[in-house]
Amino acid sequence: MLLQPSEEINRDALALHARHHGKLEIRSKVPLKTRHDLSRAYTPGVAAVCREIARDKNLAYKYTLKANTIAIVTDGSAVLGLGNIGGYAAIPVMEGKAILFKEFAGVDAFPICFESYETDFVDQIKNIAPVFGGINLEDIAAPKCFEVEDALQGIGIPVMHDDQHGTAVVVLAALINACRVTGRKYEDLNIVICGAGAAGYAITRLLKCIGYDPNVCTMVHDIVVCDTQGVIHRGREGLYSNKYKFILADETNHAGREGSLTDAMEGADVFIGVSGPGVLTEEMIRKMNPDPIIFAMANPVPEIMPDSARHAGAAVVGTGRSDFPNQINNVLAFPGIFRGALDACATRITDEMKVAAAHAIAGYVTKPRRNRIMPNILDKEVTKRVALAVKNAAVECGCNRRL
Amino acid sequence: MLLQPSEEINRDALALHARHHGKLEIRSKVPLKTRHDLSRAYTPGVAAVCREIARDKNLAYKYTLKANTIAIVTDGSAVLGLGNIGGYAAIPVMEGKAILFKEFAGVDAFPICFESYETDFVDQIKNIAPVFGGINLEDIAAPKCFEVEDALQGIGIPVMHDDQHGTAVVVLAALINACRVTGRKYEDLNIVICGAGAAGYAITRLLKCIGYDPNVCTMVHDIVVCDTQGVIHRGREGLYSNKYKFILADETNHAGREGSLTDAMEGADVFIGVSGPGVLTEEMIRKMNPDPIIFAMANPVPEIMPDSARHAGAAVVGTGRSDFPNQINNVLAFPGIFRGALDACATRITDEMKVAAAHAIAGYVTKPRRNRIMPNILDKEVTKRVALAVKNAAVECGCNRRL
Repeated sequence: MLLQPSEEINRDALALHARHHGKLEIRSKVPLKTRHDLSRAYTPGVAAVCREIARDKNLAYKYTLKANTIAIVTDGSAVLGLGNIGGYAAIPVMEGKAILFKEFAGVDAFPICFESYETDFVDQIKNIAPVFGGINLEDIAAPKCFEVEDALQGIGIPVMHDDQHGTAVVVLAALINACRVTGRKYEDLNIVICGAGAAGYAITRLLKCIGYDPNVCTMVHDIVVCDTQGVIHRGREGLYSNKYKFILADETNHAGREGSLTDAMEGADVFIGVSGPGVLTEEMIRKMNPDPIIFAMANPVPEIMPDSARHAGAAVVGTGRSDFPNQINNVLAFPGIFRGALDACATRITDEMKVAAAHAIAGYVTKPRRNRIMPNILDKEVTKRVALAVKNAAVECGCNRRL
Repeated sequence: MLLQPSEEINRDALALHARHHGKLEIRSKVPLKTRHDLSRAYTPGVAAVCREIARDKNLAYKYTLKANTIAIVTDGSAVLGLGNIGGYAAIPVMEGKAILFKEFAGVDAFPICFESYETDFVDQIKNIAPVFGGINLEDIAAPKCFEVEDALQGIGIPVMHDDQHGTAVVVLAALINACRVTGRKYEDLNIVICGAGAAGYAITRLLKCIGYDPNVCTMVHDIVVCDTQGVIHRGREGLYSNKYKFILADETNHAGREGSLTDAMEGADVFIGVSGPGVLTEEMIRKMNPDPIIFAMANPVPEIMPDSARHAGAAVVGTGRSDFPNQINNVLAFPGIFRGALDACATRITDEMKVAAAHAIAGYVTKPRRNRIMPNILDKEVTKRVALAVKNAAVECGCNRRL
């Protein structure tokens, strides 16, 4: 059982990063060998391009890198499982994310790493938006991630915190197929979400759109969210000090449950863990409805190991890891979401676009089985399907820019 | 006589920029095909790299793109000859500059374009410094360019406004060779600089170091700077409202000259124009000392056309244009300056480094002649020489980072 990366992988990773000084490079797409090349790509010819854009800013989508470039923005406050390690130490993850964007979706992504958590960077991101066609927020701690993302909506380009919505999209995709496998209907589901941070919050809100269809909006029966203090409910003390927990209390737990995670699991159909290692026990699973669905996504050590979950009766078990079946990994989502958003010249990323992405991922698995509810994360055809679905959804909901 | 870019070049430029949506792309330097690739370049291996940098920020130079990446920063307030056209319309120039950096010096450069001139972006640049090993300020109007550059000194990475210092370096290089050709000594030179904006200010200050040598510092005899109101002198009204003009008045014009540009030209050896088209007349040149040196660098139309300057007796004439001899273009300077600064892990760019760059450019022309004082701007060997000279100067003046 591989709980931590091996020393060998660590050594390989350090050597790889030292060899070329990181992973990203910036290159020209046009030739630059002759005076004629210079006169077209730089002065004097470039002035004609500048004048066009000065006349109409939207032409930046036609004539500049904006059409295909996003920023990956972090303050390094919640990097992997390493916590608040700051903007410098976050760079390797942002570079990694950038090469995933390029490899999977042909998106040019550049890291913008703020030096520290103290930075209030909303205005700063707005100010450097001209060259970017989108903003991927990354590894920013809650609740700042919510505040920053909210404040950046409406700046005219799509802004998405991947740890929230990329994760929510793949969880929704996994849930769609797990329901198929276990013969459940969305509207009957009782769901327990363990973890009320960035991912837990976004999953909760997206699952409320789970049955999205242009014509029908089906809601799940109920969602109960737990954090380290147990079940979040309207009567809990201290709720008002955290706007986002207050929203969760308001929008979930219609039955007014109280108590611990163990209490919440009574009669649940689905457990979604975005919390920490080992918080789920076999005993808790045995309190769930028959054929329960368990997504234990804490990384690298899940809330419960798949063997134990199955031993306790779980019908479908997913984790974030590549060494178990049903890997629920947001690399299936984010490259295609931004590809589709850029292809549509989208002004924002809506719930409709996220739900369309989830259905595209789920639908890619033609015959879901207990041990195969998710596509292979290295299958780039998934990205293409997601991109097309997101682009179409953007057009349908009218948030594409018409140039 | 090509005064403006032809319609054909404009059409070519627009087509080129539309074809690929701009000129820059971001690529991976490492493979990303297999799960093993993913585990080294991204999770879980990348965490080991993050932990190293969290321990020591300087290791970002070893393990990340910081080692080879600079930002090209603008607010679009003084773009080419187009004036304050804003951050969007400036993008094509910044992309052009970025591909020059890559083509000539292998430097990865990414554009940071602030939306408007109103932005006070000093803190914002500091905040996004982690991924950058240097900052090239570009096309920012005076006096903001001085203030921003001053405020950014000491942030631990080299910051240079190319319109100032790149230009100053190539002018110094041209002047060194023009002195060789005309048999002049630095210490005898009387210089008139026409234009007190970004370039004029930086040229003035750098020429004061013209005879730089580790052991000897030779000063020119005198420099007189003119702006649209004529000669800048200590007694001029309104000087105190502009700190930078006040500095110019304080550091130049020791003879206390007053009057117009025509007055200033009396007995001058060198005219350096960074102003506008046609401000210099043959009559003015006839008032200069014998065998005068004329650098008429207004673009695209110089202060005087080379034929007229020679007709009036100029010994050496340089312009910014590629269709006349002696092209004084900062592409000879900036790629090598940043290459050398990055190679030294420099913490700043000093006058010593700029002077070393100028000597490297001048020294590359083995036998300067009246019509050949500057290297060919497409000769990349110049960049290598400049880079090495700058790196060595950085080490000599102790502003290299020891890792």
